[in-house]
Amino acid sequence: MRIAVLNGPNLNLLGTREPSVYGKDTLADVEQRLRAVAREIGVEVTFEQRNGEGELIDCVHALRGAADGAIINAGAYSHSSLALRDAFAAIALPFVELHVTNVYAREPERRHSMLASGAVGVLCGFGAYGYELALRGLVAKLAPTS
Amino acid sequence: MRIAVLNGPNLNLLGTREPSVYGKDTLADVEQRLRAVAREIGVEVTFEQRNGEGELIDCVHALRGAADGAIINAGAYSHSSLALRDAFAAIALPFVELHVTNVYAREPERRHSMLASGAVGVLCGFGAYGYELALRGLVAKLAPTS
Amino acid sequence: MRIAVLNGPNLNLLGTREPSVYGKDTLADVEQRLRAVAREIGVEVTFEQRNGEGELIDCVHALRGAADGAIINAGAYSHSSLALRDAFAAIALPFVELHVTNVYAREPERRHSMLASGAVGVLCGFGAYGYELALRGLVAKLAPTS
Amino acid sequence: MRIAVLNGPNLNLLGTREPSVYGKDTLADVEQRLRAVAREIGVEVTFEQRNGEGELIDCVHALRGAADGAIINAGAYSHSSLALRDAFAAIALPFVELHVTNVYAREPERRHSMLASGAVGVLCGFGAYGYELALRGLVAKLAPTS
Amino acid sequence: MRIAVLNGPNLNLLGTREPSVYGKDTLADVEQRLRAVAREIGVEVTFEQRNGEGELIDCVHALRGAADGAIINAGAYSHSSLALRDAFAAIALPFVELHVTNVYAREPERRHSMLASGAVGVLCGFGAYGYELALRGLVAKLAPTS
Amino acid sequence: MRIAVLNGPNLNLLGTREPSVYGKDTLADVEQRLRAVAREIGVEVTFEQRNGEGELIDCVHALRGAADGAIINAGAYSHSSLALRDAFAAIALPFVELHVTNVYAREPERRHSMLASGAVGVLCGFGAYGYELALRGLVAKLAPTS
Amino acid sequence: MRIAVLNGPNLNLLGTREPSVYGKDTLADVEQRLRAVAREIGVEVTFEQRNGEGELIDCVHALRGAADGAIINAGAYSHSSLALRDAFAAIALPFVELHVTNVYAREPERRHSMLASGAVGVLCGFGAYGYELALRGLVAKLAPTS
Amino acid sequence: MRIAVLNGPNLNLLGTREPSVYGKDTLADVEQRLRAVAREIGVEVTFEQRNGEGELIDCVHALRGAADGAIINAGAYSHSSLALRDAFAAIALPFVELHVTNVYAREPERRHSMLASGAVGVLCGFGAYGYELALRGLVAKLAPTS
Amino acid sequence: MRIAVLNGPNLNLLGTREPSVYGKDTLADVEQRLRAVAREIGVEVTFEQRNGEGELIDCVHALRGAADGAIINAGAYSHSSLALRDAFAAIALPFVELHVTNVYAREPERRHSMLASGAVGVLCGFGAYGYELALRGLVAKLAPTS
Amino acid sequence: MRIAVLNGPNLNLLGTREPSVYGKDTLADVEQRLRAVAREIGVEVTFEQRNGEGELIDCVHALRGAADGAIINAGAYSHSSLALRDAFAAIALPFVELHVTNVYAREPERRHSMLASGAVGVLCGFGAYGYELALRGLVAKLAPTS
Amino acid sequence: MRIAVLNGPNLNLLGTREPSVYGKDTLADVEQRLRAVAREIGVEVTFEQRNGEGELIDCVHALRGAADGAIINAGAYSHSSLALRDAFAAIALPFVELHVTNVYAREPERRHSMLASGAVGVLCGFGAYGYELALRGLVAKLAPTS
Amino acid sequence: MRIAVLNGPNLNLLGTREPSVYGKDTLADVEQRLRAVAREIGVEVTFEQRNGEGELIDCVHALRGAADGAIINAGAYSHSSLALRDAFAAIALPFVELHVTNVYAREPERRHSMLASGAVGVLCGFGAYGYELALRGLVAKLAPTS
Repeated sequence: MRIAVLNGPNLNLLGTREPSVYGKDTLADVEQRLRAVAREIGVEVTFEQRNGEGELIDCVHALRGAADGAIINAGAYSHSSLALRDAFAAIALPFVELHVTNVYAREPERRHSMLASGAVGVLCGFGAYGYELALRGLVAKLAPTS
Repeated sequence: MRIAVLNGPNLNLLGTREPSVYGKDTLADVEQRLRAVAREIGVEVTFEQRNGEGELIDCVHALRGAADGAIINAGAYSHSSLALRDAFAAIALPFVELHVTNVYAREPERRHSMLASGAVGVLCGFGAYGYELALRGLVAKLAPTS
Repeated sequence: MRIAVLNGPNLNLLGTREPSVYGKDTLADVEQRLRAVAREIGVEVTFEQRNGEGELIDCVHALRGAADGAIINAGAYSHSSLALRDAFAAIALPFVELHVTNVYAREPERRHSMLASGAVGVLCGFGAYGYELALRGLVAKLAPTS
Repeated sequence: MRIAVLNGPNLNLLGTREPSVYGKDTLADVEQRLRAVAREIGVEVTFEQRNGEGELIDCVHALRGAADGAIINAGAYSHSSLALRDAFAAIALPFVELHVTNVYAREPERRHSMLASGAVGVLCGFGAYGYELALRGLVAKLAPTS
Repeated sequence: MRIAVLNGPNLNLLGTREPSVYGKDTLADVEQRLRAVAREIGVEVTFEQRNGEGELIDCVHALRGAADGAIINAGAYSHSSLALRDAFAAIALPFVELHVTNVYAREPERRHSMLASGAVGVLCGFGAYGYELALRGLVAKLAPTS
Repeated sequence: MRIAVLNGPNLNLLGTREPSVYGKDTLADVEQRLRAVAREIGVEVTFEQRNGEGELIDCVHALRGAADGAIINAGAYSHSSLALRDAFAAIALPFVELHVTNVYAREPERRHSMLASGAVGVLCGFGAYGYELALRGLVAKLAPTS
Repeated sequence: MRIAVLNGPNLNLLGTREPSVYGKDTLADVEQRLRAVAREIGVEVTFEQRNGEGELIDCVHALRGAADGAIINAGAYSHSSLALRDAFAAIALPFVELHVTNVYAREPERRHSMLASGAVGVLCGFGAYGYELALRGLVAKLAPTS
Repeated sequence: MRIAVLNGPNLNLLGTREPSVYGKDTLADVEQRLRAVAREIGVEVTFEQRNGEGELIDCVHALRGAADGAIINAGAYSHSSLALRDAFAAIALPFVELHVTNVYAREPERRHSMLASGAVGVLCGFGAYGYELALRGLVAKLAPTS
Repeated sequence: MRIAVLNGPNLNLLGTREPSVYGKDTLADVEQRLRAVAREIGVEVTFEQRNGEGELIDCVHALRGAADGAIINAGAYSHSSLALRDAFAAIALPFVELHVTNVYAREPERRHSMLASGAVGVLCGFGAYGYELALRGLVAKLAPTS
Repeated sequence: MRIAVLNGPNLNLLGTREPSVYGKDTLADVEQRLRAVAREIGVEVTFEQRNGEGELIDCVHALRGAADGAIINAGAYSHSSLALRDAFAAIALPFVELHVTNVYAREPERRHSMLASGAVGVLCGFGAYGYELALRGLVAKLAPTS
Repeated sequence: MRIAVLNGPNLNLLGTREPSVYGKDTLADVEQRLRAVAREIGVEVTFEQRNGEGELIDCVHALRGAADGAIINAGAYSHSSLALRDAFAAIALPFVELHVTNVYAREPERRHSMLASGAVGVLCGFGAYGYELALRGLVAKLAPTS
Repeated sequence: MRIAVLNGPNLNLLGTREPSVYGKDTLADVEQRLRAVAREIGVEVTFEQRNGEGELIDCVHALRGAADGAIINAGAYSHSSLALRDAFAAIALPFVELHVTNVYAREPERRHSMLASGAVGVLCGFGAYGYELALRGLVAKLAPTS
């Protein structure tokens, strides 16, 4: 099983960006840990980060036939990007929406997600560890053990 | 570490209630699996289910001094119960909000949660497996490994 | 055919509660008349009244396998209780929503029902006689004569 | 007692119009059955159907001094016609609002009625049988047995 | 293939009505040109114009079994008439919604259409020429060449 | 100068319709008084009343070239009829909107007028006498004395 | 009968203020003409203009026992001042609300009046002549001829 | 005179619950002080606290014929419970709504009360001392000294 | 301790203004009673009433260094005046917001207060006696006995 | 005459993307057919597709002096991109907005277009054939035959 | 060139009013610095501060023929005063709206300005220095160096 | 001190884009003048313009450690881009939001800014000269003279 992990705008700065809000783990830390978990549960993982909405859509398109599922932390685009939701629908790729922080405890404009209605699952607030939960959750959705 | 798992209205029927929507796992199945995970990661878990909002508040109060964190699937009360959010705040107990289904892909009245702004994390859409994710996520929040 | 009649908060006071608004018939009067109608049309009726939302949900759950349909006057809970609608869906029990008064001619907060979208039929404004109409209407829905 | 039954736009097609939604009974079937019920309970009934709002208002005006109550299925005009509500008020004629389908389980634009606040009672979702319920309910309102 | 062209309120004045807004073509000009196009593409066209909502509904009903599709410029009724949308649904007739002007560049009350969700296609802003586009578009929808 | 006075739905019942709200003057009384005022100020007046929106639009169209201004009491259509406002614009006829009652002191649905933004003046609350005020006001607008 | 005419903010500049919008008549012109009309119909008129909301309230209070009715052009305060409406209610003085321009054809913030629900009548759009209409209308309300 | 003091969800924890927000006084402290005030002004007081909405309604019903007025701190139910307001109306019992904190300086969801429109008076922000103010205020309402 | 009592627009008419709504006590009565209570509890009180928003702001400014707290019945300005809230913040003066009537049982525009979020406490519905409650409540806030 | 055809996010996948929704025609099919139509009516057409909003703006800018009109299917950006509308205005290029599907029959977030108020015409729901209609419509707008 | 600087409610306390929010500069400091800048760029400046809305309107009126432009910090009136915007329009005086703090980073009720649509420019957040920026900006608007 | 000046979509066309709205100064003109001002006040300035949101975010990221403040005219992205606000927060860079036109006097969709709550200051309406004001204002914020 191949799982793609996509990160959106400003997440290249994870770990250095407002660490009291987003934590001290960098995307590299996340990637390292996810690779370990992936090996443990026998799946492949790939990683991409883009600051542009169009570039993220390109990344999604590139997953057609190349991934069985995706985890996306679309950052601020989560709250406005119908085009990203359409991109996943266009290639019929199941995805999990993830946020590092609990978006419901922040500004009102972060409460509504344009992606969530197209996702198989959504999680937020678990910090960098959330990526691991998302991976386990998505894999369980795609390949239920029973 | 002691983690309480609380389930709200109609969740006593999990597994038999609209299985095409909520899945075939019962609360007993969830409990059995969570106990196994809890043993694996070295925490204690307790379980309560109530159909009444007041009874759920009583359950939360009973956790004061008796639990270090909670996972709550408050069902339909998630969308209206300020009193439940107040109950967790009243005893300063960190909690994770969980839904079996992806509430963002259902009726509009399920999109807003009264609990979420008080939670440490929120997850939905992972079926019965979500309880295990919530447990791992909450424990990671309460006892970061580093 | 077994029909359950459920009454919600404050309806224990029917007949004495603001009689200029709700009329002078008590729940006992309603029950007596409904039993007569039930005998006439060959169905069984049961009656429950609860002031608590959780208790009403318990009543609904108890109807699983014990009733073929329900009539509910959920009183003020009609306007807020997603959990009650979920309870009927959880056991796949057809129900009619009923109000003694014409809720559309009262305060704006009474105009919206959380139950109605899950009901097979809705009626209001016919006073205590509405229970009889609801019974006839529900039975006709469940067992169309042709 | 004389009761007028008014039907609004598109109801001339009842029975052939989206039968999976509106049922297979025609207005003629409804009329036949209502006449039988009317005879049984000793009231007179008249029937009118119009596709135009102005024509429906004319029908209402014609009931002044000629009817003691009315049942109206105003179809889509229910959701916009203040003029029809005014027409009933203008001649002080009590009326019941009726819908064949459960309007609360359909598109949002069908949830709000401009007529309801002026009605003595409202019912929906009972199919063609609803006309009989409306007749019984209206007669009970106008001539309470005690 | 038979296509009916329906025009609603004030369109009898097309060509003389605010020509700087609606253009100088009259309905007769439109009809003449459409007849030519219809001959070219081998379909029959009929034309009706009514200022009343009820009369327009009557026109729609008259198309049952007499037309394979319709083009409607419902004028100001587009923004309020659920009854017209219901009329097309009642006879299951595919239709195109058309406006002579670009309604999105005018007053806000012209931005929302009650018809559009039931249409097969919508177009506006092309002046009198829009009728020809609508005819070609509708015919293409009803009889795809491949 | 020729002024047309148009009355909409239910105004045929003026004087008998809820007299405590609308007063005891009939449309005939209004007409008689307005004719006297018209003679006094040297203008011609005509009168039409229709219950249908389409018929009212027909009346407006008939004024093209036959009137210099209009007074309209569109009754309940005032609050919804964009088509009527369009009709006046279509023939570029200045008009005054009038209501017998003070619509701002009644139900909220009567506060918004679809006609007002196209009118030269608006007045309400002066009872049947308002027609005379509207006539004087409109004539003053059309033929300012200086 | 004593009628007070009150003018609010910026109306001291009437005639010089945006004359293409408000016309060329000054308040002095208005006063002169109104005094003539008052003499003709046998009533007394007084005039006050204030730019401050509090000063206008003082003016209203001063009318207690000194006026039988009032005409107020409260200018921009019309759209926000509950205190002015309360002032009239406090001394139970009937009043007419007047605007020189048609406020419904201007910016949206001018469409809602805080005064209107307390007025006996409302008129706008008739320019300076509107004061005369308001005077005649108010006197007719206070002293119906029959 | 008999006054009932009712407390709703989470108020059993008063004094220990977020003391920086709610203060350090417990319900027992409140009760002790209120008993002293009650003795001073010659009224009887009773006390109940419940976490469930249904249980609170039961408490209200139990006051029929047993109390002349009530003080209710309904906690978070204040903002959603139409059923509690109905309960007081059902037994025609005058009540004062009280909050320990100033709810208007907290989250937006605490600004709207479902109880307030049925109350004789409302007060908030005075901490535990507010109960004494409510008692004095209610008694003054029920037995004006003059 | 020095407490200032400020009254806003129309409150100079208290006692004569709609006595069925506001009661028969005048501001002078209120002042007399408050002076007695002030003596009893050992505080000084001053009184001001203004109809203008600017004048009320001036009054607040004059309290800098001259008062330890304030009670304000800002009348209709409560619902719109951010400037008054700013005035109290500008001099960091704690204040209680008071209304003689229960504003939540009146028109919707009276439900929202611009002052309340800046107040230490809010009370309404207790008539003239409310001033005494406000004084006791404010003094208790400023000088807690323990 | 030179017409540019611009396609936005996810339209590179047209034909393979949810074919039951968007049809089986690819952009290449659209281009081939449009070229044929262009030859027939004697205009030049160019084609661009971009997934990024900035890249689409670049494409629009590149049309300055190089095109006489444009057809844009901006996909999901239609519903949010003021910047694209600004881009057309910046170079004063007339454009037609096009959607392959009937956006009014899909999710509510697709009903509002940010582009439409700047377009000369809008059409949707005609599938790939819509591009041909848009081309004919735009050319007719730019070069009216008379 | 003559520029008037107007300050609204509570700005007399600038420098002492919540200095952590509004800074330590007083209006006198602002005036002194602005006079220096005015000399440098060769314009005259005048200064007025009022706490009342009516008094501010009087100040604006007094500028007719006496100033070529104005800078206004209307404080809290910015968010509600249509009358002030009307005052500037009444004398056709160009003005800049200024706020000392960044109003967009404060309470929601400070985000909307009633003045801004009538201003030539708006600035906020630059503290007392903003007055100098406003002066330079306004002068540049009125006398472009070209 | 190093200040970066960022320009967003369509601003590359400044000077040629709708000059009656945006003026005739090009970005090159702006840059030239700003460099002069920068020299005068002893700061360094850099300039970037991008049409893409992602590219603008990249520009912001590149300023980390390379600038002490930024001025951004984000054009139409101002009204929707949470990601840009996040970018500034991510590198803790103070910025001023600038618009060439007075956005409050244009279409409603330009009134709300997603950037403003994160800015230190906001200004609009001063044309190209606004960049100079923004520079002076930002420098003053970053290096207060006292």
